[in-house]
Amino acid sequence: MAETIVNRRIIMASRPSGMPGPENFSLEEVEEPLQPPTGVRLKTLFFSLDPYMRGRMDEGPSYAQALSPGDVMEGGSVGEVIASADPAFSKGDIVLAYSGWQTHPVVKAKGLRKLDPSLAPVSTALGVLGMPGMTAYTGLLNIGHPKAGETLVVAAASGAVGSAVGQIGKIKGCRVVGIAGGAEKTRYVREELGFDVALDHRAPDFAEQLKAACPQGIDIYFENVGGRVWDLVFPLLNDFARVPVCGLISQYNGFAPRAPELPSVPELMEQVLVKRLRLQGFIVSDFSAQQNEFLHDMAGWISSGQVKYREDVVDGLEKAVPAFIGLLQGRNFGKLLVRP
Amino acid sequence: MAETIVNRRIIMASRPSGMPGPENFSLEEVEEPLQPPTGVRLKTLFFSLDPYMRGRMDEGPSYAQALSPGDVMEGGSVGEVIASADPAFSKGDIVLAYSGWQTHPVVKAKGLRKLDPSLAPVSTALGVLGMPGMTAYTGLLNIGHPKAGETLVVAAASGAVGSAVGQIGKIKGCRVVGIAGGAEKTRYVREELGFDVALDHRAPDFAEQLKAACPQGIDIYFENVGGRVWDLVFPLLNDFARVPVCGLISQYNGFAPRAPELPSVPELMEQVLVKRLRLQGFIVSDFSAQQNEFLHDMAGWISSGQVKYREDVVDGLEKAVPAFIGLLQGRNFGKLLVRP
Repeated sequence: MAETIVNRRIIMASRPSGMPGPENFSLEEVEEPLQPPTGVRLKTLFFSLDPYMRGRMDEGPSYAQALSPGDVMEGGSVGEVIASADPAFSKGDIVLAYSGWQTHPVVKAKGLRKLDPSLAPVSTALGVLGMPGMTAYTGLLNIGHPKAGETLVVAAASGAVGSAVGQIGKIKGCRVVGIAGGAEKTRYVREELGFDVALDHRAPDFAEQLKAACPQGIDIYFENVGGRVWDLVFPLLNDFARVPVCGLISQYNGFAPRAPELPSVPELMEQVLVKRLRLQGFIVSDFSAQQNEFLHDMAGWISSGQVKYREDVVDGLEKAVPAFIGLLQGRNFGKLLVRP
Repeated sequence: MAETIVNRRIIMASRPSGMPGPENFSLEEVEEPLQPPTGVRLKTLFFSLDPYMRGRMDEGPSYAQALSPGDVMEGGSVGEVIASADPAFSKGDIVLAYSGWQTHPVVKAKGLRKLDPSLAPVSTALGVLGMPGMTAYTGLLNIGHPKAGETLVVAAASGAVGSAVGQIGKIKGCRVVGIAGGAEKTRYVREELGFDVALDHRAPDFAEQLKAACPQGIDIYFENVGGRVWDLVFPLLNDFARVPVCGLISQYNGFAPRAPELPSVPELMEQVLVKRLRLQGFIVSDFSAQQNEFLHDMAGWISSGQVKYREDVVDGLEKAVPAFIGLLQGRNFGKLLVRP
């Protein structure tokens, strides 16, 4: 009888409305033959938790297919090949995959990328050398067009994307203002990452602090949170400011009530015109042609110490659900990974 | 005694709130020596009336200095030199100036551009070969990036800017949908200018007509009106749609009440992200480096018949005020000029 293996995986049990809760997920175990008929069987070393996954849980059109109840939660992963039906991959290969929240998935050979563990810790393929790092790089450079002396503001500044955005901004000569939640994160952003200023958005006088931190206004706002931070940033934008719109994490679980004195859409458009603002949404795959350039630059910056990164690793598949909910609430500190 | 001349001019008597009325303007007559101490004296042949002038009448920051009560109404003009204190200009020269609503202004030599009446009617320097034409050209090409087969929507399609936008879009291979007010203008846009579709925004079923006219969605919306048209266009925008924001004429005299079911700013930003939209404001002077390229291309298109234009000429300085109010209400038909 063929050797079998138990694959444990987390599925979306039901669609959340608002903030997801444990009831929206369930853990499945399936015993299968170890050897797949096609493709390769992986032992997952790490999988990634990212804010965009919340969007996948909603119905309706977005830039990717929505999950349906019963589907395995999606996402990037790094795994070791433990059985292969494909001549291109052998046992022991470490690969970047997109197999989501599971311990021993079977994946198609197409789309896998072999990783060289001697070049960088393999987990970085899910972070600073992976999708979040490339999101920061492509959005900031292609839409933000940072120039020396300009003021760049980025929220979620200790997170996987925000930390890279700010450090690339420093490399390009910008004055960088980061926004994060709490004293520990702001200290890290300022002292470890070298941002010029780090502000705690929970401070009662955050609005005044933001204004004071941007005496020359804001030239680039890398938008990854939306909501209240956007409302405070918007009046500070300079003529010709660029706003790469990368994410809106504060809005993913519903819209907060909006104060009537805040701008309406016609008022926003008036400012877009008068200040010649550029607001532009993107996702990293829009710039996939720049992957080699990104890997080259980012690997160089990491080895020179110009870009630092921090990982927040959670052990155990069953911890993925509370960790993901915590991510949506800003409770992670650095690139969030699960070692299942 | 030196020869004198009477310069008649229209000043902003008071700041309008909402739609300007005749009470916000007054006509002044000043008798002065014909010969200026410096610069040149012009006899105005045409001056231009443009929507942006409404913005100049408001206080507060915009992309140009606001007018103060007592100032002559500003704007582009074409004049004949009738007296010169500058060796670079002689009596009889025809020049493009920025002398506003007056009959016999004195202007600085710097900033004047001589026009050659044998190349094109001199009035076109205020229209299709001038600021409005270059606004259309630079905004559409630099921000709209039209590609063959895409759907381009433009409002105020019989106007100075909109008519050029649509015709350049046709040259670039777009399917062009124009929006105008009334049967005469829509007929002109379709039959004379060669747009694929022309819609009357006054039609009771305009919303349905717009949707039906864009079965493949909208790739480029050249925004020059704002308000209701924007609200109807917004849900039809395709992934990667570009929106050059050139003007918002429907909003210049105040914001219409906004139906609660229309998107709020956070909802707009969500669509910017999900659809990777690009919204970008501009004014023509942002692209002044492209003037020679513009003049070359546009002159070629006019002589080949690929771009047509229409002028709406009003005779008499005192007619400028009702003509300007009519412009803000969409009552002009083509590039509005005053022959004072």
